[in-house]
Amino acid sequence: MAEKLPALAFGELTDVVRFLMEIDKLKSIQRRTKVLGTDRQENTAEHSWHFAVAVMALAPYAGDQVDIFKVLKMAVIHDIVEIDAGDVLVYDLVARQAIHSEEEAAAIRLFGMLPDAQGKEFHHLWHEYEAGESAEAQFALMIDRLMPVLMNLHNQGQSWVENGIRLEQVLSRNAFIADVYPALWDHLKNHLDKAHQSGWLK
Amino acid sequence: MAEKLPALAFGELTDVVRFLMEIDKLKSIQRRTKVLGTDRQENTAEHSWHFAVAVMALAPYAGDQVDIFKVLKMAVIHDIVEIDAGDVLVYDLVARQAIHSEEEAAAIRLFGMLPDAQGKEFHHLWHEYEAGESAEAQFALMIDRLMPVLMNLHNQGQSWVENGIRLEQVLSRNAFIADVYPALWDHLKNHLDKAHQSGWLK
Repeated sequence: MAEKLPALAFGELTDVVRFLMEIDKLKSIQRRTKVLGTDRQENTAEHSWHFAVAVMALAPYAGDQVDIFKVLKMAVIHDIVEIDAGDVLVYDLVARQAIHSEEEAAAIRLFGMLPDAQGKEFHHLWHEYEAGESAEAQFALMIDRLMPVLMNLHNQGQSWVENGIRLEQVLSRNAFIADVYPALWDHLKNHLDKAHQSGWLK
Repeated sequence: MAEKLPALAFGELTDVVRFLMEIDKLKSIQRRTKVLGTDRQENTAEHSWHFAVAVMALAPYAGDQVDIFKVLKMAVIHDIVEIDAGDVLVYDLVARQAIHSEEEAAAIRLFGMLPDAQGKEFHHLWHEYEAGESAEAQFALMIDRLMPVLMNLHNQGQSWVENGIRLEQVLSRNAFIADVYPALWDHLKNHLDKAHQSGWLK
């Protein structure tokens, strides 16, 4: 797709414009979760938007040490590497491990399209998010993981059922939420138990 | 759709979760612009994401007085009202005028689902964006308007051709870009003239 795009001159913005047109492709990366009440899989661009709104709406529940501006920027760019590396199910641990070097190459190619300062900022933000260690990365990861769980709880466990996910998988992969926001985890566990009883989770 | 969603208890987060599930509907609001290289219209959720990345990538070109955190938040929430009011073509001035009260009602209903403090913040941000007066709103509006122009310039004028748009319309509706970022406007005018010569604009 990109090679067919005209390379238009925009002075100092030429590289930024090419990057922005290239990342349009994220709108064509499919996730497992379907848009509520529809039979269409959501794509990674609209997921990233949903994640960003959630950051804003949940900001008052983050600790004072959390820089919400940084979390918001992480939400916006966290999955751009999927343009080259694709989306991998969060419960497929083997595939997630295997895709690491592809994602790093994708970050180098895609963020490398930007002018140096912006490219470095995007790359650093993405590394910090992936490392999951800073307060901002922890809060961002919690929300990223929370969104498909919430959508499944409101959609008869659609992507859990379609991918044969077990209750223990959801509990163990998301247990870190208990550290970030204990009260939320208590409610989630309760709803996940009910989802299991309803047969939405094995 | 919303009335069918289960109302799940999440303690102090119950209203936030209901809001986040309600705004999933933005993924089903169609715009005129098509995703590059595809025959699919983009939806407003993925446009909002694209706009947000553009804010980050263009941040170094904003003046020092521009609070980029606020611009980013505007980008994320600016079109949520379209869930109730729908998308109206930027060149349809009569329809844009007529939809004002519907958008205000949508903002009251949708942002009103949030806890009071968050709801007020979202509503104020949206009002400031719509008023278009602050430095942040000007920068945000410029990027919001820029994105479909860039996509059309990289896609044989797809939505201009399909909606019979004239060069004068694009020039007059976007002339404010010359105030916000003069160098960008010079490049845009040049590309728009060529688009007109190519028959992409009447």
